[in-house]
Amino acid sequence: MVAGAMVADAFRPGAPEPAPRFTGLPRLNFVYGHNDPEQIPARELAECAAKVLAESGHLLGMYNLGQAPQGHDRLRAFVAEKVGRRSGIACTAADVLLTSGSLQAMDLVNALFVGPGDTVILEEFTYGGAITKVERLGARVIGAPLDGGGIVVPELRRILESLRQEGVRPRYIYTIPTVQNPTGTIMDLGRRRELVALAREFGVPIFEDECYADLVWSGERPPALYSLDPDNVVHIGSFSKSLAPALRIGYVVAPWNVLGRLVALKTDAGSGALEQMVVAEYVCRDYDRHVDELRAGLGRKLDVLVEALEQEFGTAAELFRPEGGIFLWLKLPDSVDVRTFAPTALDQGLAFNPGPDWACDPEAAKSHLRLCFALPPEATIREGVAELARICFQHTGVPARSANRLRA
Amino acid sequence: MVAGAMVADAFRPGAPEPAPRFTGLPRLNFVYGHNDPEQIPARELAECAAKVLAESGHLLGMYNLGQAPQGHDRLRAFVAEKVGRRSGIACTAADVLLTSGSLQAMDLVNALFVGPGDTVILEEFTYGGAITKVERLGARVIGAPLDGGGIVVPELRRILESLRQEGVRPRYIYTIPTVQNPTGTIMDLGRRRELVALAREFGVPIFEDECYADLVWSGERPPALYSLDPDNVVHIGSFSKSLAPALRIGYVVAPWNVLGRLVALKTDAGSGALEQMVVAEYVCRDYDRHVDELRAGLGRKLDVLVEALEQEFGTAAELFRPEGGIFLWLKLPDSVDVRTFAPTALDQGLAFNPGPDWACDPEAAKSHLRLCFALPPEATIREGVAELARICFQHTGVPARSANRLRA
Repeated sequence: MVAGAMVADAFRPGAPEPAPRFTGLPRLNFVYGHNDPEQIPARELAECAAKVLAESGHLLGMYNLGQAPQGHDRLRAFVAEKVGRRSGIACTAADVLLTSGSLQAMDLVNALFVGPGDTVILEEFTYGGAITKVERLGARVIGAPLDGGGIVVPELRRILESLRQEGVRPRYIYTIPTVQNPTGTIMDLGRRRELVALAREFGVPIFEDECYADLVWSGERPPALYSLDPDNVVHIGSFSKSLAPALRIGYVVAPWNVLGRLVALKTDAGSGALEQMVVAEYVCRDYDRHVDELRAGLGRKLDVLVEALEQEFGTAAELFRPEGGIFLWLKLPDSVDVRTFAPTALDQGLAFNPGPDWACDPEAAKSHLRLCFALPPEATIREGVAELARICFQHTGVPARSANRLRA
Repeated sequence: MVAGAMVADAFRPGAPEPAPRFTGLPRLNFVYGHNDPEQIPARELAECAAKVLAESGHLLGMYNLGQAPQGHDRLRAFVAEKVGRRSGIACTAADVLLTSGSLQAMDLVNALFVGPGDTVILEEFTYGGAITKVERLGARVIGAPLDGGGIVVPELRRILESLRQEGVRPRYIYTIPTVQNPTGTIMDLGRRRELVALAREFGVPIFEDECYADLVWSGERPPALYSLDPDNVVHIGSFSKSLAPALRIGYVVAPWNVLGRLVALKTDAGSGALEQMVVAEYVCRDYDRHVDELRAGLGRKLDVLVEALEQEFGTAAELFRPEGGIFLWLKLPDSVDVRTFAPTALDQGLAFNPGPDWACDPEAAKSHLRLCFALPPEATIREGVAELARICFQHTGVPARSANRLRA
């Protein structure tokens, strides 16, 4: 009998298969939102940890350090100040809920808005986890078309009108307006105003995800959607991309009518307080300097990636050069289906995100893929792109030409 | 218009009301599983944090430090070794999943086993969160009778037989066999064997919660249920009670057929890695010494609590003196309904857990209450018990006599 066979007999219908056993990270790793280990301020975090634990480690004896279930006071105050300064959001610590990464924030927002049979609108290409989470809740996903400036508002209007005719009011419009995942675009202020007005016209809340917003190359970005209509937008963000993904600290900004309900739904006895204490100390000292340096380093890696892709793929790859962040979205010719070689690539130690996993309509992204460039060193980026071209060519005949040489 | 009024219009049916605004902890605080702040090894944790961050802080740049989604390798190895040595469980790190507190472990187990319309068996008096979590999932809760040795097995058999006649197979039997919450009892080995055999006979998995098991006064405890039948038991535990509640580190021990599915359901991109790194370093150095000291300190606080209760309530209170842990369960005369004065007590800064919140049948525990004694200093314990007696008397006439003086 298989170990656990007895208990297995009692699983719920629809229980997932066991996850694959972890066998280590792929050698040429362009997936997940890993960051650059060289850019983790380990020494400074060590100083901060030693300081806060020596000063107030005894508070760990109380859930939430004896503070509000919303999370660490000082870190919430920092978030309020940061989103005010960087995203134009007028709020205080009372409007902030700290979560165990922005994925918990997403789960909580979904728990408040989305159930079986509901409809949600996502961007046609978007974070894969946003799709799978709502699908797992039994909701229908509709993709809003994107262009180089984000959601195409007239197209979204047509979708909303069509749904209204069906008698359907979508639960929310999920958008990543500032460094869109995966396309890397930034929605300008004019379009933000149109989007917010449209959502209000149809009575559909906006769910705004700003995980990458502090990593814009130019340092300039339009105000958050939340700042334009706080009554109809729920705003989430994270320190995963701007500091460290293994630190699980995300946040929600919303008025109490929403936030208080998310607090009520957050039945986890609080998120990890040590991480909050340490990050609070660190970001109050050094956040702006850190993200400036991180951004510069990421920009250099992007340059290396783009150069390598141009060399290996030439005109065969259409690159959507991002305006910030940690990933690049690209499109191969329509004849290429990246799913045909993704498993082989993984077997050979090369991991990328196939476009279909990042698309409401998988077929529409069969020739796309996403490359996260933050983790690999520059030499590994070059090696990975060469390997990608080699494997892609083997399976699809594309790219026929690399570095001005014909492949064979 | 109320802030957030627009978005609120789109909530799911059944969305909770906003949580009450946090206004600080009650002054005389006998609720939650807070621990003794004096017993938090803050200085040692500071050393450990400084060390692990200096050595491997750069790994925070990768989700899960680049390790398995199951959590920090060294901490999983420690858990496997600890439950082997202390609970008689034969397992390895591969059988351990680290979670964001044992509450996430509970959510994951529920996601695998429990859905709307299902039936689960809990202990008649049990952790309130275990009840509310399954009720929120739309499941029916049935309470198994307890005595001084835990679940009364013949009574459980009658319940299982009756359910079988209805055609109902319960999803699991949830039990806290080692320092039961709230009754503080330890199930002996003979009864453990009977329980495991009964569960197997009826094809119902056991969900074993060992959050308090390392805090047994005597240091001796029977082997975990999991060790007796790993094929039909899912085992969870935590460092919240034995180290610090604000550190959110729990764990599940189960064969891969179960554990791998919990990993698949854990879509949070990992639990906080900094807490895992620091705790791994600390517990590998000092766990046994720490829990010995903590236990001794908690035992002294329990003595103070019992003495104060005997002085203030005399024979009016039936005390269920726990065999370990951080709380005491007590019963007042049947004429007393603790709900009649709990809100007044809270208004006056005295918080306790009314029995009904910790019972499958709230009416059956209307005269009971739970007091957590780990947080308040000894003088506060005495003051709190005096205040409890005063307020209880005001509302119920009980205790009529305190410290050999008639109340009036």
